[in-house]
Amino acid sequence: MSNPRPIGVFDSGIGGLTVVKALRDRLPNETIVYLGDTARVPYGPKSPDTVQRYALELARMLMQKDAKALVVACNTVSSVALPLLTRKFSVPVIGVIEPGACAALQVTRNHHIGVIGTRATIRSGAYEKVLRAADNNVRVSSRACPLLVPLIEEGLLDDEVTDQVVTRYLEPLLAKEIDTLVLGCTHYPLLSTAIARVLGHQITLVDSAQKCATAVQETLDRHSLRSPTAEGGELHVALTDAADNFLNVARDALQLNFGEIELQPLP
Amino acid sequence: MSNPRPIGVFDSGIGGLTVVKALRDRLPNETIVYLGDTARVPYGPKSPDTVQRYALELARMLMQKDAKALVVACNTVSSVALPLLTRKFSVPVIGVIEPGACAALQVTRNHHIGVIGTRATIRSGAYEKVLRAADNNVRVSSRACPLLVPLIEEGLLDDEVTDQVVTRYLEPLLAKEIDTLVLGCTHYPLLSTAIARVLGHQITLVDSAQKCATAVQETLDRHSLRSPTAEGGELHVALTDAADNFLNVARDALQLNFGEIELQPLP
Repeated sequence: MSNPRPIGVFDSGIGGLTVVKALRDRLPNETIVYLGDTARVPYGPKSPDTVQRYALELARMLMQKDAKALVVACNTVSSVALPLLTRKFSVPVIGVIEPGACAALQVTRNHHIGVIGTRATIRSGAYEKVLRAADNNVRVSSRACPLLVPLIEEGLLDDEVTDQVVTRYLEPLLAKEIDTLVLGCTHYPLLSTAIARVLGHQITLVDSAQKCATAVQETLDRHSLRSPTAEGGELHVALTDAADNFLNVARDALQLNFGEIELQPLP
Repeated sequence: MSNPRPIGVFDSGIGGLTVVKALRDRLPNETIVYLGDTARVPYGPKSPDTVQRYALELARMLMQKDAKALVVACNTVSSVALPLLTRKFSVPVIGVIEPGACAALQVTRNHHIGVIGTRATIRSGAYEKVLRAADNNVRVSSRACPLLVPLIEEGLLDDEVTDQVVTRYLEPLLAKEIDTLVLGCTHYPLLSTAIARVLGHQITLVDSAQKCATAVQETLDRHSLRSPTAEGGELHVALTDAADNFLNVARDALQLNFGEIELQPLP
């Protein structure tokens, strides 16, 4: 069996590789094509219209590679473009928000969930909507944390400045007595150690990259789309512009193996 | 005299408003049209090819408004696209790098100049080239400071976390005994107080936004392009995507008056 259809994964940049890492661990015989829009990263500060337009372009590029499923490894895109993508493409489309929200509902005991993410994700209220739709007794406290992505991209994963910034962002959520915190940005799993340090053991962290990978596995099973081969799948990484230093940070921190980066300019 | 031709100013985003502020102070009777590419900000991590392509698009949009001069209020664009823009357009094109570099050469006593900027600006070596071309005895120590823009955009202009980050970036330059520091990013004038706090009084700060405004005035005089009216000029601000919180940070910190923001989507 040659050239099994890949899973297409896209993100505004390189952060979505945390989802790829979770997929590789969970589905090692699937081939993955990753497309990161480094020419236009970040999507966080951009308007919903612009993000939707960019998401359609990226999804089309992956469909040209015969993707059997589309994984939106980006909270900003998931929060504003998932219904549109689902309508436009016939393959299953899996985002990061619903899996993260559902996992948070399963682990919270006091029904008070915290969510952190980029300004766009928090402003969209996407996690809140999904959480409330599933359980209208849940309380949600959200916080935009715009400095975390730059700190991660600078490689300050284990650093006192990062700890201070994390503390400042999380203290108001702790004061409100959340018992569960959703990492609502695909970069944030790279800071999970720092975040856990600030949170202590009382709060359960929900990594939406991990939960997204679980949802992808379930979706492929449901649609009988799992790779028929028992061999190891391949990982191809394409970017719309040359990668900067953060690609090395992510590769090292995630211990991901991929070869040459393909440069795939936007149409 | 109605509708005098405006000065066209563009930037990858909102940081270039520091140049606008310097221009308004210096040339109050000139009308200014500012175009910020918030749909694709930041340019710092993007490749030179991509930055050049974007710069041409923005310059064309300003030329359609009959700009009499183009001001590139962005170090990243100035560092990679100035020769191209000068070749493509018949009006004078003024960047931020040459004015800043020339001013630094005038004030340094020990001929050792520090330059800070985004990764793209520092990697381009643009300041170094201009400085060495003018004085081949000059010593230049450069440092990319990728966290400063996000800290500024978060509004942490007077904050201990920012001071720590500034200290960390500047200490190696201080250890090398620079006596002059060029703020090689149009955002950085918003941090000049914090930077001066870390530097103490021994180091002269060169604000390339201020120096760019001086160069614009000289260029307009040389080409007899100064506005014939004695009335106050207008300031029009257009962005390629909806502005985020940083527009308020910049407006407040710079005390700039402009009315409605025009949304000018990319072609």
